[in-house]
Amino acid sequence: MNQPTRLQGVFAPVLTPFNADHSPAPDRLVRHCRWLVDQRVGLAVFGTNSEGNSLGVSEKRRLLDTLIESGLPAERMMPGTGACAPTDTIELTRHAVRSGCGGVLMLPPFYYKGVTDEGLYRAFAGVIDAVADKRLRIYLYHIPQVSNVPISLDLIDRLLGRYPGTIAGVKDSSGDWNNTAAMLERFASRGFDVFAGSETFLLANLRGGGMGCISATANVNPGPIVRLYEEWRHRDAEAQQAALDATRAAFAKFPMIAAMKAAIAWKTGNAAWRTVRPPLVELSAEQRAALEAELTAVKFELANAGALA
Amino acid sequence: MNQPTRLQGVFAPVLTPFNADHSPAPDRLVRHCRWLVDQRVGLAVFGTNSEGNSLGVSEKRRLLDTLIESGLPAERMMPGTGACAPTDTIELTRHAVRSGCGGVLMLPPFYYKGVTDEGLYRAFAGVIDAVADKRLRIYLYHIPQVSNVPISLDLIDRLLGRYPGTIAGVKDSSGDWNNTAAMLERFASRGFDVFAGSETFLLANLRGGGMGCISATANVNPGPIVRLYEEWRHRDAEAQQAALDATRAAFAKFPMIAAMKAAIAWKTGNAAWRTVRPPLVELSAEQRAALEAELTAVKFELANAGALA
Repeated sequence: MNQPTRLQGVFAPVLTPFNADHSPAPDRLVRHCRWLVDQRVGLAVFGTNSEGNSLGVSEKRRLLDTLIESGLPAERMMPGTGACAPTDTIELTRHAVRSGCGGVLMLPPFYYKGVTDEGLYRAFAGVIDAVADKRLRIYLYHIPQVSNVPISLDLIDRLLGRYPGTIAGVKDSSGDWNNTAAMLERFASRGFDVFAGSETFLLANLRGGGMGCISATANVNPGPIVRLYEEWRHRDAEAQQAALDATRAAFAKFPMIAAMKAAIAWKTGNAAWRTVRPPLVELSAEQRAALEAELTAVKFELANAGALA
Repeated sequence: MNQPTRLQGVFAPVLTPFNADHSPAPDRLVRHCRWLVDQRVGLAVFGTNSEGNSLGVSEKRRLLDTLIESGLPAERMMPGTGACAPTDTIELTRHAVRSGCGGVLMLPPFYYKGVTDEGLYRAFAGVIDAVADKRLRIYLYHIPQVSNVPISLDLIDRLLGRYPGTIAGVKDSSGDWNNTAAMLERFASRGFDVFAGSETFLLANLRGGGMGCISATANVNPGPIVRLYEEWRHRDAEAQQAALDATRAAFAKFPMIAAMKAAIAWKTGNAAWRTVRPPLVELSAEQRAALEAELTAVKFELANAGALA
């Protein structure tokens, strides 16, 4: 089951920079991705924190093409491809695989609620059968508080039994460590790679046999998160984890996506970074001032911010 | 504010027939729409009960084109056009308006949860400004138990103030009569047309100044629902309402979309009608038998079923 492209480490659901008219800003996206890769962070573009669900299929295809044409490493990319419509999921997943992406992060179809595991199994199986490509590696995206469509342990068990290798792992964004621990216990030995949905559980996940984390704050605090990933067996790992938690807590006092963008705008001096796409809203001037005070209190720094401006 | 195309009456979120491979079956869709229009039911294609959120943008565009090329009346259509990505919503809405549709039924962007009224206002305003067409008439789609993104009274007030005429009304699928009543009270006098989200509240809505209903069961029980719409001032209106409620209750004991499709398959003898797209699942044989018993008990009939097969 070990493949050269097996993904591990720290991934960012890469923030999508927008222009004032809410169109994507590909040049700034490329710079942000380079800055992340230079700090050994993988690229989970089009995730929740990427406002990926506010981007259309053709926008996502074009942005992925731009990233790859810019020389960014496809094998370190895990684009979000799960949409409500199976046809969209298939199109995006096929495009990602043919572009050489190391994996895809796949939401379940998330409009219809109260659906059964049988229905979700058919949805995932339908995508896998339609894409029909041995290179496909799917990371299931469990984020029930947003999707409202949980991915159960029994569903994983069934998918993994039928599609070993293709069902490559999970991002567990439930925030429920017991669930992450259950995934590790039941599936890690079967070549199923568990990523924590934030660095909050990075140390615990690595100790339990997980592969890393895919975390919003990797967009703004990549160095220290990667350092813990690389040094988790060191004696100061708990202290490192505590420092990560303090930085994350500062951001989490605000709407997270807008706050991360505001922090980048602040540190780079480029106010265009603040822009979010509706239905999200930028931080107010008061919120920005409060965020800056919080971040100053935890000694937050954006390393090499000039490369991002 | 009165325009010739002002929509009223009974609309069905038109069931989308699928082939065995889950591709849409346009011929059967056209026949189903003709059957509905012949019974004076309007066509809210691509709604929740249409599995509209399991169809991609290009699929919806093609199906709408097919319906109109088949001679079905665009002015009696209210296609669902609200998607997660504003670019998708704009594309579908523009296409519907240019195709002559009487209105569009618009979900809010529904992936991100806990968004503000300000963010939703910007999302709707962005679509209206981008489409920039005086013919556009938007029916806001309030279905919080599925979208998890409610449309508040204050948001309606603000949108209606800025875009009178364009903000044409609402489908209230909350199932909360108090909410529908509040919409009628606050907005009906401002040219804002309230449709109940099911025939359960059809009589109450008409008595309160509403325009009709947009109801799943109009797909299978159109005649009696339209009859109440036309005869709501008659002495037997309450009895008509009770009969509608009994039929709806029989369907509602099962997953609604699969049950309506199973009923059509049963009455037409065309088993292909049973097919749903994942993540939905067809009724089991046991469920179908139970449904048929329930429907027989309420003397359910599918009028002129031969036209649907």
